[in-house]
Amino acid sequence: MPNAKNRQDGEREFAYEGLDRLIHERARLSVLTSLAVHSQGLRFGDLKRLCGLTDGNLSRHAQILQSAGLIDVLKSFENNRPQTVCRLTAEGRRRYAHYLSVLEQLVRDAAGSRRAQSKAAT
Amino acid sequence: MPNAKNRQDGEREFAYEGLDRLIHERARLSVLTSLAVHSQGLRFGDLKRLCGLTDGNLSRHAQILQSAGLIDVLKSFENNRPQTVCRLTAEGRRRYAHYLSVLEQLVRDAAGSRRAQSKAAT
Repeated sequence: MPNAKNRQDGEREFAYEGLDRLIHERARLSVLTSLAVHSQGLRFGDLKRLCGLTDGNLSRHAQILQSAGLIDVLKSFENNRPQTVCRLTAEGRRRYAHYLSVLEQLVRDAAGSRRAQSKAAT
Repeated sequence: MPNAKNRQDGEREFAYEGLDRLIHERARLSVLTSLAVHSQGLRFGDLKRLCGLTDGNLSRHAQILQSAGLIDVLKSFENNRPQTVCRLTAEGRRRYAHYLSVLEQLVRDAAGSRRAQSKAAT
């Protein structure tokens, strides 16, 4: 069968080591993408709804992300009612951007294979 | 603060429920992407090298993917030496393609936010 090496450096070519496990977990990826898109931050309730998470799940993952320094969780009052707002930190934005660049590489790698296959089929 | 709803359907907009946990796990995502790109299949040793996995890790994940019907693990002889070759099944290809389409949506969502921010900064 053909040799797998078709780039100069075949070693760990598909390892995608930049897919940081802290970010890659699906619920946290969902939270971080929501916050990357809403750079002004999101209320806890809006974030929960956008990510389809329960109170408990979002609380747990928000705490993990806050402990790691990726998000800020800000408590305040709006019209005399307590509000919790989550927002990416500068460090969170930087690490999410790096993660995303690896994801984009993976999508390009996989899309390349699709093109090669549809070409072979014609 | 501004309302989070800026698409018609804000409900679970960032949930990315199509990110199948069986595929999303980093080592398995790495294995499946390698096999999607090498549609003729890959020898165990080549797959291990491309994914940067140990023997034990690759064996464990290959077994999980085989049990789920996403890959075939074929044992044969080449020049009198035993060979193990892994390859995507039709079902594996279908599910990986669906997973990939969700990943592409996520990348588009996140890239959209980057564009908006660089526009705001100018």
